[in-house]
Amino acid sequence: MKEITYQPIGIIHSPFKTPENVPIQHTGAKGAVGTIEILPEYNEGLKDLEGFSHIMLLFHMHQVEYHKLKVIPFLDTVERGIFSSRAPVRPNPIGLTVVKLIKIEGNIITVENIDMTDGTPLLDIKPCLPMIDDLQDIKLGWLTGKIEQFGVTRSDSRFNKTSK
Amino acid sequence: MKEITYQPIGIIHSPFKTPENVPIQHTGAKGAVGTIEILPEYNEGLKDLEGFSHIMLLFHMHQVEYHKLKVIPFLDTVERGIFSSRAPVRPNPIGLTVVKLIKIEGNIITVENIDMTDGTPLLDIKPCLPMIDDLQDIKLGWLTGKIEQFGVTRSDSRFNKTSK
Repeated sequence: MKEITYQPIGIIHSPFKTPENVPIQHTGAKGAVGTIEILPEYNEGLKDLEGFSHIMLLFHMHQVEYHKLKVIPFLDTVERGIFSSRAPVRPNPIGLTVVKLIKIEGNIITVENIDMTDGTPLLDIKPCLPMIDDLQDIKLGWLTGKIEQFGVTRSDSRFNKTSK
Repeated sequence: MKEITYQPIGIIHSPFKTPENVPIQHTGAKGAVGTIEILPEYNEGLKDLEGFSHIMLLFHMHQVEYHKLKVIPFLDTVERGIFSSRAPVRPNPIGLTVVKLIKIEGNIITVENIDMTDGTPLLDIKPCLPMIDDLQDIKLGWLTGKIEQFGVTRSDSRFNKTSK
């Protein structure tokens, strides 16, 4: 199949300078404030965004240098398939996070609950809508009973290049 | 900023052959069954996925041939900024959908509530986790009061090449 090419639409400025000790999900990133700098040529696309309380960021995890199909995720001690985890060392390292929208000034968006490293290239912004009608129906597989730990677990160096 | 390149990990087979008359969100795609064919070299990454009831698909909207920064979305009659909408003609046409997982047999995943066209290249699969702790908090901007229409609204030809 054909290779797919994207151009970043902006850059994410975050308090987290290295891939260690980063919140592993936005639900564990309460209060971490960052800014998103949209490239001026895309600025017009931000119209109407300020009415939304939460926005989804799709970004390129630029510090990922390899991929693995089985990983020991931050929340587990056994190997899991990469597609059943949110681990960064994915074949296509696209990150997805929901952040709280604080304000938009020109091409700068201030957001809360940020969980990516500083300098991350941004691919897309989407308004955050309810994803599942009936949350009672949801089954979380191996993550059952573990997602509460998002609030206290931080990343470590396990997915760095040297720990491949 | 540097261009970003991805390789599809699979292909989505869907009952929707053209970009017209497709459900505009998975919440409006109840019951539409499709299959995802994972390239054999990524098959091992599917381990443990079958425990999840819902999975997120990130895909390349391959039929999008241009982008616009302001669009009249399917659910509206006035122009909105592209990043405040889910319209396909985005600078980076990455689609995101939550589907219900029916079964996994080898490298074939059968899913329900599919809302993309046949032959769509798949970029990533992530387990679907609750995205926002407190849904009471969510503000939906111009989509307030409109998302119920996902169930009855279908796409039309407005984002086809000829209607640019």
